[in-house]
Amino acid sequence: MNADTYTAPIADMRFVLTHLVDLHRVLDLPGLRDCSADVVDAVLQQAGRFASEVFAPLNVVGDRIGAQLDKHRVRMPPGFREAYRKYIDAGWCSLSVETEHGGQGLPRVVSSAVGEMWKSANLAFSANLMLTTGAMEALIAHASTDQLKRYLPRMLTGEWTGAMNLTEPQAGSDLSVIRTRAVPQADGKYRLHGQKCFITYADHDMADNVVHLVLARLPDAPAGVKGISLFLLANRQVQADGSLGPQNDVKVLALEKKLGQHASPTCVLMHGESEGALGELVGAPGAGLTCMFVMMNDARLQVALEGVGVGERAYQHALAYARLRVQGRAAGTAAPAAIAQHPDVRRMLMWMKAQNEAMRAVAYVAASWLDIAKRDPSTEQRREYQDRVDLMIPVLKGWMTETGAEVACLGIQIHGGAGFVEETGAAQFYRDVRASSIYEGTTGIQASDLIGRKLGRTPGPEAIRGLLREMRATAQELANPRGADIVAVRGSLLSVIEALSSSTEAIIACAADEPQGVLAVSVPFLKLVGIAMGAWQMARAAGVAERLLSSGEGDSSFLREKIATARFYAEHISPQAGALAVTVEAGRSSPLAIDFCA
Amino acid sequence: MNADTYTAPIADMRFVLTHLVDLHRVLDLPGLRDCSADVVDAVLQQAGRFASEVFAPLNVVGDRIGAQLDKHRVRMPPGFREAYRKYIDAGWCSLSVETEHGGQGLPRVVSSAVGEMWKSANLAFSANLMLTTGAMEALIAHASTDQLKRYLPRMLTGEWTGAMNLTEPQAGSDLSVIRTRAVPQADGKYRLHGQKCFITYADHDMADNVVHLVLARLPDAPAGVKGISLFLLANRQVQADGSLGPQNDVKVLALEKKLGQHASPTCVLMHGESEGALGELVGAPGAGLTCMFVMMNDARLQVALEGVGVGERAYQHALAYARLRVQGRAAGTAAPAAIAQHPDVRRMLMWMKAQNEAMRAVAYVAASWLDIAKRDPSTEQRREYQDRVDLMIPVLKGWMTETGAEVACLGIQIHGGAGFVEETGAAQFYRDVRASSIYEGTTGIQASDLIGRKLGRTPGPEAIRGLLREMRATAQELANPRGADIVAVRGSLLSVIEALSSSTEAIIACAADEPQGVLAVSVPFLKLVGIAMGAWQMARAAGVAERLLSSGEGDSSFLREKIATARFYAEHISPQAGALAVTVEAGRSSPLAIDFCA
Repeated sequence: MNADTYTAPIADMRFVLTHLVDLHRVLDLPGLRDCSADVVDAVLQQAGRFASEVFAPLNVVGDRIGAQLDKHRVRMPPGFREAYRKYIDAGWCSLSVETEHGGQGLPRVVSSAVGEMWKSANLAFSANLMLTTGAMEALIAHASTDQLKRYLPRMLTGEWTGAMNLTEPQAGSDLSVIRTRAVPQADGKYRLHGQKCFITYADHDMADNVVHLVLARLPDAPAGVKGISLFLLANRQVQADGSLGPQNDVKVLALEKKLGQHASPTCVLMHGESEGALGELVGAPGAGLTCMFVMMNDARLQVALEGVGVGERAYQHALAYARLRVQGRAAGTAAPAAIAQHPDVRRMLMWMKAQNEAMRAVAYVAASWLDIAKRDPSTEQRREYQDRVDLMIPVLKGWMTETGAEVACLGIQIHGGAGFVEETGAAQFYRDVRASSIYEGTTGIQASDLIGRKLGRTPGPEAIRGLLREMRATAQELANPRGADIVAVRGSLLSVIEALSSSTEAIIACAADEPQGVLAVSVPFLKLVGIAMGAWQMARAAGVAERLLSSGEGDSSFLREKIATARFYAEHISPQAGALAVTVEAGRSSPLAIDFCA
Repeated sequence: MNADTYTAPIADMRFVLTHLVDLHRVLDLPGLRDCSADVVDAVLQQAGRFASEVFAPLNVVGDRIGAQLDKHRVRMPPGFREAYRKYIDAGWCSLSVETEHGGQGLPRVVSSAVGEMWKSANLAFSANLMLTTGAMEALIAHASTDQLKRYLPRMLTGEWTGAMNLTEPQAGSDLSVIRTRAVPQADGKYRLHGQKCFITYADHDMADNVVHLVLARLPDAPAGVKGISLFLLANRQVQADGSLGPQNDVKVLALEKKLGQHASPTCVLMHGESEGALGELVGAPGAGLTCMFVMMNDARLQVALEGVGVGERAYQHALAYARLRVQGRAAGTAAPAAIAQHPDVRRMLMWMKAQNEAMRAVAYVAASWLDIAKRDPSTEQRREYQDRVDLMIPVLKGWMTETGAEVACLGIQIHGGAGFVEETGAAQFYRDVRASSIYEGTTGIQASDLIGRKLGRTPGPEAIRGLLREMRATAQELANPRGADIVAVRGSLLSVIEALSSSTEAIIACAADEPQGVLAVSVPFLKLVGIAMGAWQMARAAGVAERLLSSGEGDSSFLREKIATARFYAEHISPQAGALAVTVEAGRSSPLAIDFCA
């Protein structure tokens, strides 16, 4: 397979959306009733084709040439500008923005599937699309009507893109120590001064303007998070009538040379080198971090999808190689064999496939919870699903990005020596996805959020216990006499439920007395929750597949593979949950036994 | 910490050599009696200094500039030539070669420790040193007296280096399909024709000549492995008196652009583009693979050491960063904290430290078994230790290289966003070590060797059962009333023993009836054996440390850390053994349930 090739896994996406997500319920939510199942299917088909034909062929050239800085302006690799033009012409920019704001109003669960495709096809490219959507959502949530009128229309068309200017050299995981200053002007605007780093797509040559959401401090603002406000500015100033004005005082000082995602410009960005970058306050003074946090669940789900996106692409790449590469002999014969016939290669392919399908199912189900949490007519339902979402988002972000990196690592392994050679293409996935468990909050930050703000407070414990009840119900549904595969899947699910339940109660019980201890096992616990969610959705999938098979519905080959994949997950991945539970329950003190600063 | 910095972990090396390895027994072996414990210590000190001062500072420049091809000649990065000159001037080349062949005759256990340092300091550089040692060993084992006389002296001095020319485009893991031809000449020499790939250091500008050991076929040789012979040739022909003759007909056609190890030239090498590369037969016709297999245990142990070598360097790098990088607050205070104070970062540092120390202990103990197997006066002892070595080498190669990659991955994570930026240096370790689980036999090949040729035949089962008996004896020794740390370590060790024992018996019992099934769980089994060996040596270490502490001997700070690290291993790493046992015992069919070639 050419490294440029990608085929969207539409069959699996459709299976998840039809049988694991309650798509019917989602499409019946207020505001989504114009979106039928047929529309969803058409969107998936078109997005799949677009990803394959437009984005995927640029993945390698993006890596080889990368974004370049030329006199403080970012120049994208060849073909990127044209591909972006096709993207905006096809109207993909406004997919998930609500119709009342001029968007197409597709549910999160559908835009998540589309997002997975963009990430599979071209992770570095997709960052720009994700940031623009995020910036639009932030403006819709917090900007004034006037600001929306001037900024949103050209972002909806894709003429302008978005960037999030949070990090500073001394303020990474801890944004409370941000120093960028915003000085009020006579006309109600502000002049911003300060250097930011790790600003993705702060500049590029694909669109007319870049709109920045900037965290900064007003004069005399209190120290800490309560002194941080949110500002809006753009590379080219936006006039009162929404037209483009003069160049603003923002300048890209440098691009980072990174391990991967070379086509995604990571900028050191100076605000206010001379007179100050002209910007506007968004929301209330001091509410900057709160404003950004509103966006966090969406943003973290998007980054979580990078795990399955790159994992899927790495799997397709490895599978194609394993089918073509002949080495050694097939069992019991003298005939040369494709390596995809060798048991250990089959195990690795199954491992990649099973992890990808589990991640996809868990992510889309969680995305549907976001839709329900946002739109269900019942306040109680909205709250219940919001509680679940709040609990699961850090798990998805941490578990999926770490798992995606492991999947890409196995993708190299299947290629053998060729995998270490860049030309083969497998190494790019491994390099690219390595950032996903770092940005938008490292796995450690996610785990601390899970243990602290989520499980450590009402209603976190009740939310996870509710999920455990549903997992037990799934195990119950699979209890009637079934084939050996389902028996194995169910047995493994019961072990996972036990591991998750006992670890969860241990964490809850110890949180008050051992705050450092529970943090010290927070990442193992997060991984345990992720694996358990994967085991649950794969068990549900196996149950559905068996039912469909026995009633003669569906694609029998796909359904048999789904059951086989669920059994593999149960036997090769789920057992890790038990090991992690041992660590969570017994290993809270040993990580803290050495003082590394002594 | 500057990315160029490395400090050899002499204290831990000394602890392992003194308390876990029976160094006294090794130094009392025939042929090693000139080597005292004082000599060993001096060698470690000097090697540590040399690694830090000469090799380590070239690691980054080697990565940035890499080896370059210029008119078919390989040019090394700046400083490499001078460093190699210092290396040969200091006499390191002949360290492990036996004294009767002109070497310094140090035991494997000591040269392994030195090898770890070279790999920590500069993995790409170290490949050349390893290959030269390997080539010398191969010649000593198989070459004629005349060949030895002409080739060995200048390799011992380091004036000439060695290369191993095995792989061809169609013959990677399966060498039986090698096509390179060797045509006999009237004078008893041979002309070789054929293209090889992945030939490491086939050419460079640091020494006067490169000596190649080449696998090729004689005319009318039978197909398969029995038709493969071993040949000796050099870039510059070696005359009858051992002096340099004309350029040979070997040519580097290209260098691979690789994910890592950029300074280690990976050559596409043409033998015999015109008249044929002039070479000599080594050993008997058709014995080529057998000759190479004699070297395999040494070579695989060397590559295994890359796991701990790079892991150690990545740990030092991450620790230095974590101590300096201030972010967030220390628990219960408002004071800014170094991230090394945060529980999850401490967990990651402990994880890296524990894995490195376990790998080091297991590797050095295995290296001492190699010494005993080679030199013990008792035939029975030699055989017993050779059986152990044969069993453990694939485990070390697979487990340590995979673990080293995980350690380097966490090293990036500790750096956060900076870890994804190449300038930080953490990413290089991640890229460099990714090859170690591929070359010299992938992890899958190691696992197949472990399950098939080792455990699948006498005396493999008895060898592993013997190790299990020793592990139980260690648990027994730790059974007397002890502190909570030892109680935890012992409890975990007992679980590991149970997991290893039941999995081993399952593999042995199923091997005949389910040959494909046991191969399908061979890598999980290999990892389980590795983790179990690590748990065993860490438990032994904890027991020794406690004894020394209670008798007031040794560095109490080091010993307390050793106990803490062993407990961390017991609680955070050993539990994986139980999960892997579930997979090995229950998961033999699911990897084979999908036909990926259908």
